[in-house]
Formats: sequence, structure tokens, C-alpha cells
Amino acid sequence: MSQFEFTHRRKNPLTGNWVLVSPHRNNRPWLGATEKSAPSNLAEHDESCPLCPGNQRANDTHNPEYNKTFVFTNDFGALTSQVAEQAAQLEANPLFEIEAATGECRVICFSPKHNKTLPELSVNEIKDVVDTWTQHYVELSAQYACVHIFENKGAVMGCSQPHPHGQVWAHNHLSTEIQLEQASQHQYQQTHGSNLLADYVKREIADDVRVVYQNDHWLVVVPFWAAWPFETLLVSKDDVRHFGQLTEAQSTALADAIKVLTTRYDNVFNCSFPYSMGWHCAPSDLTDDSHWRMHAHFYPPLLRSATVKKHMVGYEMLAESQRDLSPETAAKILKNASNVHYTEGNQ
Amino acid sequence: MSQFEFTHRRKNPLTGNWVLVSPHRNNRPWLGATEKSAPSNLAEHDESCPLCPGNQRANDTHNPEYNKTFVFTNDFGALTSQVAEQAAQLEANPLFEIEAATGECRVICFSPKHNKTLPELSVNEIKDVVDTWTQHYVELSAQYACVHIFENKGAVMGCSQPHPHGQVWAHNHLSTEIQLEQASQHQYQQTHGSNLLADYVKREIADDVRVVYQNDHWLVVVPFWAAWPFETLLVSKDDVRHFGQLTEAQSTALADAIKVLTTRYDNVFNCSFPYSMGWHCAPSDLTDDSHWRMHAHFYPPLLRSATVKKHMVGYEMLAESQRDLSPETAAKILKNASNVHYTEGNQ
Ligand SMILES: O=P(O)(O)O[C@H]1O[C@H](CO)[C@@H](O)[C@H](O)[C@H]1O
Ligand SMILES: O=P(O)(O)O[C@H]1O[C@H](CO)[C@@H](O)[C@H](O)[C@H]1O
Repeated sequence: MSQFEFTHRRKNPLTGNWVLVSPHRNNRPWLGATEKSAPSNLAEHDESCPLCPGNQRANDTHNPEYNKTFVFTNDFGALTSQVAEQAAQLEANPLFEIEAATGECRVICFSPKHNKTLPELSVNEIKDVVDTWTQHYVELSAQYACVHIFENKGAVMGCSQPHPHGQVWAHNHLSTEIQLEQASQHQYQQTHGSNLLADYVKREIADDVRVVYQNDHWLVVVPFWAAWPFETLLVSKDDVRHFGQLTEAQSTALADAIKVLTTRYDNVFNCSFPYSMGWHCAPSDLTDDSHWRMHAHFYPPLLRSATVKKHMVGYEMLAESQRDLSPETAAKILKNASNVHYTEGNQ
Repeated sequence: MSQFEFTHRRKNPLTGNWVLVSPHRNNRPWLGATEKSAPSNLAEHDESCPLCPGNQRANDTHNPEYNKTFVFTNDFGALTSQVAEQAAQLEANPLFEIEAATGECRVICFSPKHNKTLPELSVNEIKDVVDTWTQHYVELSAQYACVHIFENKGAVMGCSQPHPHGQVWAHNHLSTEIQLEQASQHQYQQTHGSNLLADYVKREIADDVRVVYQNDHWLVVVPFWAAWPFETLLVSKDDVRHFGQLTEAQSTALADAIKVLTTRYDNVFNCSFPYSMGWHCAPSDLTDDSHWRMHAHFYPPLLRSATVKKHMVGYEMLAESQRDLSPETAAKILKNASNVHYTEGNQ
């Protein structure tokens, strides 16, 4: 039993949002919705998959016969680089604030293999993904202030294509979350004279109750303020603010950390563990970004098994996030999970 | 075509959060997850339902043979009224902010009928629900600053019991959403000398492009900043700040507005339309709450059909909400939906 086994709230210092923690509640019976698990018998190549090498996509283009990663402009992107003429006529009113948005949306196929998710790729293959993220971050951040790199994994996370892939959405405006994190990190540095996440990393390593994994350059921790049951923060141990600053050693270590974290996720419930994950980097239009540190958030929805997820609904939408098991308990489970993927152990 | 058919962002003046609107995106193909529809052949009484009259619940209690609404303390509440001793030992650190939380969680069965959701009840029966909300709001707000009344409808919204019911969670602290709405409404009144939602109601009625329904006392509108495809705001037209101030006429008109809105929801896709809905009232510990106006938010997840929902994942979790069809288009669909429930029309 940790010291936190009573009902309490914790504050996310990056966003200012609180989360209600009710550790006693994990015992309630569950008769509600169950989710389908990901199919485990996919072929390495699927003729009907618009992301596989050589196949046809939505419009009349064909994918190349790629053998590492492959990136293309999202055929149905939420953002386009066209500037709307109507935007000029928008009225200014505090109750009807509106602004035009332009940007680009790209899709990143992680590998040619239709049936290999991140934990099933080698560290070298994951390093290719890291390098692809870096390449597109650098290219797009030269043009756009805000570059969001993320992955929706699993149908339960709205992923519409089983072929493992992530996305990049880049735009000029700062998104709500980046605005919040920018303000919080800046404010913290003004007040304390140090970097928020640097201080946080030091404390978590010293405390060692929420650490899931670390290597020379990266720390994986269930953050003190985690909202999702097995939420983690993957954060640089070094003064790195965005992908453009990564050294070879840091990129390789990042691939290792992703391999370990995603493998352990799959091993918690012996299933392809769904999540949304994404990177938060310093906006590229800052003159001083010393208050930033690059990090990724992993938001996995599963709570008790491969088919029972936490629903962030009702109270959570209208009041604030609520969690059942404590972050410390979740960290212990993830720390103790095996580094060998459950499908390999079975061989 | 409305004037808003280009990619843009809108700001929610109650929370400060932005939403990305991409009207062109509604045409993309969907091969992702589909949801189960609610079963439509439930009996009026179910022997195995812990919420039906006379039945046994989780512990050894039996429900009374109730014939209107029925309220009980949640057997697995996220909040309890016990004060934790450990709370006294909590350390103060800006990166590890934590506070004890106490409160109460109750369940409100809307009627004895296992198979009748809100739109299938009469206005009189819905008025019983409004009166029950009022009674418990008044009782709990005498003790707690923040009383959240809400409903999760449908398995897709995490509802674990099909018997139509809502919940009340009351606590001393202000939840994140109430804190945000409190700050925004207060700030608006300081700046403009008028009430935020009063001004908003006037403008929406005058514009008449997002109005779904109104009666003498209530307005239903797809808010300008709606994040969910068919999100609505149900707001008092009068200077009412919380349930304790409702007159008989306002309560009856509220029952009417709920009947119309939930009927139209069901008629959009001819199904029991899932949603989370909940009330935002002035915190009860304010000395001056004149900047508040009571309102409910309805957050329904469906996007295109009874089985295809909008996934708020990836970009939405890590950046900001994104929507495909414009709020104006959604309002038109809801405005044109029939007031006669689709199951009655079929008789
Ligand atoms: O209390 P219930 O209805 O079993 O639980 C449901 O509503 C709660 C409040 O919105 C959520 O925290 C749960 O995730 C959801 O499953
Ligand atoms: O673009 P996709 O993968 O088809 O779509 C998915 O990811 C997007 C970005 O997180 C979300 O807006 C969609 O709701 C989700 O289904």
C-alpha cells in the first residue's frame, strides 16, 4: 500500500488541470461496454491496405515499394495550406472568437510491415521512425510554429487503419495544449529560476516510486498527475527542447525507450495495448525556449483488461478527470512488466 | 453552404479552449471502429437490474417499490464523506500539488421503467426528474461548494447500467471545469459590465443560425464553439444561477426543453442517442454569483450514424478538439429533426 490510498486530487503543472484520484474505486463491478481486442493474425502485406507498399490509396496515387518508413500528405487532412479568403471578413467579438487556420497533415507509415506495431519492430527499425519524425519536424517547423507528431494505436483510439502509422499536423497557431504548456513552463522558470521538467525529472529519479524505465538520455514515468490509468510521460533527461536538437546518441536511446515502454504496455494485459501518444516540443517561433523540454505523453485507455477501458465521460467531461488505481500502483505494474514481448515469450 | 465552410478555429469563452473546425473533412471514408447500438427490446422491469424497483443491489440492500424517481448513495462512489488522516502530512511543492477530497456520490433513477429513456418519458415524468435534481442540489449545496449533476447515456458513454439514471457528485473543492467557467464569467462581467451567458443568449436568438429550440424560459443552441458533432448548450433565458432559484414555470419549461432536445437527438439517426450531459451552476460558496447563469452541456459522441462516433483522440488529446461538420450545419439538422420520437412514429 502506498501513502496515497485515500481520495484526493492532484494538479497537472503543465496544464493547470486537476485529476480526482479514488484508489478504493477499482473494486467496483463492471457490466458496461467492452472493447474488441486488436486482431492478432494480420498478414505482413495486405492487398486492400492503402498504407502497404505498392498499393493504391484513396485518390489515384500508388504507394512506392518502400522498405523503411514512408510519409505522404493525408488525403483527408483536417488542415490544408490554402488560406481562406472569407477569413478576412471575420468579426471580432469576445463571445464569437474565430480565426482562419492553415497547415499540413501527413501520415507516417512506421515500416512496410502491415502487422508489426512499434514494440514488434527492432530498436533499429524504431530508430528509423525517430529519424523520420526528426526529418519532418525540422522541415515543417521551419514553416509552422506548432508541429504535432502523434500516433493513435488501436481501433478503440479512433485509428482507422491497422497498418502501424502515426501522423504529423503542423500549423501556424499554437494549439490549446501547447499554449497551456508554454504558459506553465514559462511561468515556472520566471518564478523558480529553473526548468519545470528538468526539476521534475530530478525529483522523480530521486523518489523512484513512479519511474517505469530510464536509460542514459530518457526517463519514462507515470506522472504524479496522470489522468489515464497507465498514462506515462517520456521525457528527455537532457536540455533538449525539440527534435531538431537531438544527437545520434539521444535518438538511439529514444528508440530503446520506446521499445521498452511499448513492449511493457503490451505485456500488462497480453494484448496490443491501444493508446494515443504524441510529442510536445517548444514552438518554433520563440526567441527564447529555454523553459521548454521535449517530451511525449502516452494516453492508453485500458483499465482492467484487454477489453475493459476507462471511460472519460460524464464527470470527467463536465468536471475533471478521475482515476481509480493510483499512479504509484500503475508505475509498479509497468516497472515489473517483462521487456520481452508476450508474443515472443510464447514461441 | 454557411459562411463558415473553410478551415478555422473558434474559442470557447467559458473555458478558454479552442476547437479546430474542418468542414471539408466530413467526406473522408471511415473504416475504423463501429459502436454497438443500444438494445431496443428491453422489458419494463428486469429482475437482474440493480436499479429496478424492489430488486437487490450490490450490498445487501433492496430498492423500495418506487414509482417516480429514486435516489440512493452510489455503492461504489468516487468520493466519500470521510476525511483522510494522511491528508495532513501532504508536502507542498508546485510540481507535486495534492489535496484531500471529500464528498458524496448519488445515483438518480429517472423512473421505475427499465426501458424508458428521457425522451420516452412524458413531460410530467421529466418534471419529476427536474424536481429531484433540484431537491438534491439544494440539500447538497448547503454542505458542498460544488454539486455536479450529470447523466451518461449509452454504453458507448461508459454507462454501466441500462436502466435510465443520472448521478450527483458533490464536493467542497471546485472542479477544474467549474474553476475555468467561474474565472471566465467573472472576468467577462468585470470587463463588459454584463453577464457572459446573458449576452450570448441574446446574440444567438437574434442571429438564429445555431438555435435548436426555445421556449419561454430556455434556449437550446449548438454553441458557436461546440467541440462534439452535435453538442448543445441548454441555457436559462432568465437570471437563474442554480437549481435553488428555479420557479415552477421554469422547471416545467425545462422538462419541455429536455423532452424536445432528447427526442430530436434520437431522431437524427433513429437510435437511442448516447451522450454525457451535465449541469453547471454557480458554486454555492460565492458571496456574489451575479456573473453566473445555470446551463447544461450535452456532449453526444455520434458523428455520422448510429454506429460511427467521433473519436476525441490523438490530436484532440494532445493539441485541441477538432470537428468535421460545422456547428451551423449540426444546428440545422437538429432544428429540422421531428419532435415526435421515431419509435412512436412507427406505431
Ligand atoms: O459510475 P458509473 O456510471 O459506473 O461510471 C461511469 O461514470 C463515471 C462518471 O462519469 C466515470 O468515472 C466512469 O468511467 C463511467 O464508467
Ligand atoms: O486521421 P484519422 O487517423 O483517420 O482519424 C483519427 O485521428 C484524428 C486525429 O487524432 C482524429 O481527429 C479522428 O477522430 C480519429 O478517428
